[in-house]
Amino acid sequence: MRIDVYPTVVNIPAAEELAGKAAVAIDVLRATSTIITALVNGADTVVPVLAPEEALQVARDNPEREFVLGGERKSVRIPGFHLGNSPLEYTRSRVGQRPVLFTTTNGTRAIRRAAGAREVYIAAFLNAPAVAKALAAGGLDVAICCAGTHDQFSLEDAACAGALIEFLSGPGSHLELNDMAYECRELFRRFDGRIGDLLHLSEHGQSLCKLGLQEDLLFCSQLGTTALVPRFVDGQVIG
Amino acid sequence: MRIDVYPTVVNIPAAEELAGKAAVAIDVLRATSTIITALVNGADTVVPVLAPEEALQVARDNPEREFVLGGERKSVRIPGFHLGNSPLEYTRSRVGQRPVLFTTTNGTRAIRRAAGAREVYIAAFLNAPAVAKALAAGGLDVAICCAGTHDQFSLEDAACAGALIEFLSGPGSHLELNDMAYECRELFRRFDGRIGDLLHLSEHGQSLCKLGLQEDLLFCSQLGTTALVPRFVDGQVIG
Repeated sequence: MRIDVYPTVVNIPAAEELAGKAAVAIDVLRATSTIITALVNGADTVVPVLAPEEALQVARDNPEREFVLGGERKSVRIPGFHLGNSPLEYTRSRVGQRPVLFTTTNGTRAIRRAAGAREVYIAAFLNAPAVAKALAAGGLDVAICCAGTHDQFSLEDAACAGALIEFLSGPGSHLELNDMAYECRELFRRFDGRIGDLLHLSEHGQSLCKLGLQEDLLFCSQLGTTALVPRFVDGQVIG
Repeated sequence: MRIDVYPTVVNIPAAEELAGKAAVAIDVLRATSTIITALVNGADTVVPVLAPEEALQVARDNPEREFVLGGERKSVRIPGFHLGNSPLEYTRSRVGQRPVLFTTTNGTRAIRRAAGAREVYIAAFLNAPAVAKALAAGGLDVAICCAGTHDQFSLEDAACAGALIEFLSGPGSHLELNDMAYECRELFRRFDGRIGDLLHLSEHGQSLCKLGLQEDLLFCSQLGTTALVPRFVDGQVIG
């Protein structure tokens, strides 16, 4: 099995190169952690959209669907939206049995860019063991698409990619890794058991702390709290 | 001092963001190792050009300058060129007192993209300690522009970036690192004293070995063989 990790959205190759592969979109802080949490808490579906205006338009055009509008710009809730980008906001009472329209700066773009692959999984630390199990069962080559932050490498996404690779590694696994995948696994091994420390060390984690969002970091640092493996199919993420 | 590392050409930000900084262009395998070697061996100047046709045209238009044409596409010498991209080819007898027109797949683009900075240095393991010294003396914020390989992270460039940061680190240094810079320093620390192993482990190193270019890896893995700190000024690299 070949595993390529792409550190940011701009490093994700064109759709042709992803064809036939299993892609994994990762934005630990916080888009994919939030999407997973919304689905765990009973959201019907999460529809990633690129622009806030697009979300508002879809909601206006389909009032009967009672969309929850969620997402952020510069880590802050978008005017006119119901929810921001904190997984802690996506409770059962708010999103249960409802569809969510979701837009974030980096995560949404990563999911859309990964869409050329045969399968597109949504991963964060919360479901990393389960995603690794699904990848192993599928047996396809893997393209791990980290969102990064504003087109730059981010430690938390890289470490989550590394977690997936570590869980796929073993005596009989015969993994072929690109250089980024190799380094991501090393990074995860260095922080295994103290992912919270890593998130606090990361630039994005530090900027969230400055906004008073420490609880988001703690929540997103939990490894393997759910077996849910969301997939991006026909423009929406389903549980 | 703030240090940002950009892992590949596509991650290098726009010129405005580099203004006022010292940029360092790195392509260990092999463009910057080769440029440094050419200048150490007496080349007048190395002019990075993006396309082979551009190099051939400039040489035709200026026959009196007796340009040496050097560079590669897919690691192989370009038809009509005098030299490829192996530093071992750039001997004193071939390049001494002559100007070199030089084009490579990744390295040339990285140098050109870094050109918005106040200073642009050319680095590889060969001169990493000297470049670090120059950066420390200059005191500007630093933008380390790794070429990477075909827009993907490469271990050898990242480790060389890490070497620069390690040499700049110290009790009184107060470095502010982006996430990539942090990880590059960790990578260098892991391989300090065995850079040759790292180059053999890297994807690009392995592909060069398949082409029989092991000696280039050995040459490029030498740390601090020269105190030369080439700079990119007005479109050319000078020693």
